[in-house]
Amino acid sequence: MTARKLAQPFPIVTPETETVEAAQLMAERQLAGLIVCDKDGRPYTVLPGSEILRFLIPAYVQDDPALARALDEEASDELLRKLVHATVRDLLPRPQDIDDLPIVGADATVLEVAAVMASLRSPLVAVVDDLDGEHRVIGAITVSRLLAYLLPTRPQN
Amino acid sequence: MTARKLAQPFPIVTPETETVEAAQLMAERQLAGLIVCDKDGRPYTVLPGSEILRFLIPAYVQDDPALARALDEEASDELLRKLVHATVRDLLPRPQDIDDLPIVGADATVLEVAAVMASLRSPLVAVVDDLDGEHRVIGAITVSRLLAYLLPTRPQN
Repeated sequence: MTARKLAQPFPIVTPETETVEAAQLMAERQLAGLIVCDKDGRPYTVLPGSEILRFLIPAYVQDDPALARALDEEASDELLRKLVHATVRDLLPRPQDIDDLPIVGADATVLEVAAVMASLRSPLVAVVDDLDGEHRVIGAITVSRLLAYLLPTRPQN
Repeated sequence: MTARKLAQPFPIVTPETETVEAAQLMAERQLAGLIVCDKDGRPYTVLPGSEILRFLIPAYVQDDPALARALDEEASDELLRKLVHATVRDLLPRPQDIDDLPIVGADATVLEVAAVMASLRSPLVAVVDDLDGEHRVIGAITVSRLLAYLLPTRPQN
């Protein structure tokens, strides 16, 4: 079994994607994160949903979430307004080193996928195909899909 | 809107739950993690699926996932055998400080939930009810559910 066969289609955004669109994708598909590729389709990073909230919620409220109770409806709308006109690029920290990205080649074995997920504590790995030296994302493997594949083969003793 | 109304039922395991059962829950419900409560129902920590893989995959393979290619079917079965007889307790680091847990009270506001998720970079928060000083988990809120709730109220300009 290779990563290519386990991979499932997964929505991809670019740094230019509007934040609202990215948030809607996560909400509709019930995803905890999205794969971010540059406009040439090369994997760039993974955007966890919590980064959208980090962008929205002021640092002093993150430090003391009880302060959020004091914010009224108007303050709340004000925060959401930050999402409009923002793009995924605004949410991303710095481009990561490719070694830190949860990415595997299409020919990676299941254990290799598991090792990457384990080592980066990632709930998701992107599967990339190498075409003439260009990396293209062909899908993704979630931790639940990997566990579902691994479990039926476990010994039943 | 309060955390109580946004919370959805979520599977709960205890440190005594068998690892295989926890892995099956994640696989079947397509979850990236589970809430761990002690046997009195008090929230204890969140178990991400990647921790199961960290338990399975030897450290030297996590450090260099390409080594996983060299593992044959037999070595792979050997790894999976580690899951049998292991319990969730074996996968957990140390009990965390309650302040580090993604937990909100049932009466928390949506922004308070968002602040906790943002500050802990968590894709999930457990919602607890306080009954006579005893915390009971009544459900959980995922980042995608929170975004789905927040988005319809965004300004359309």
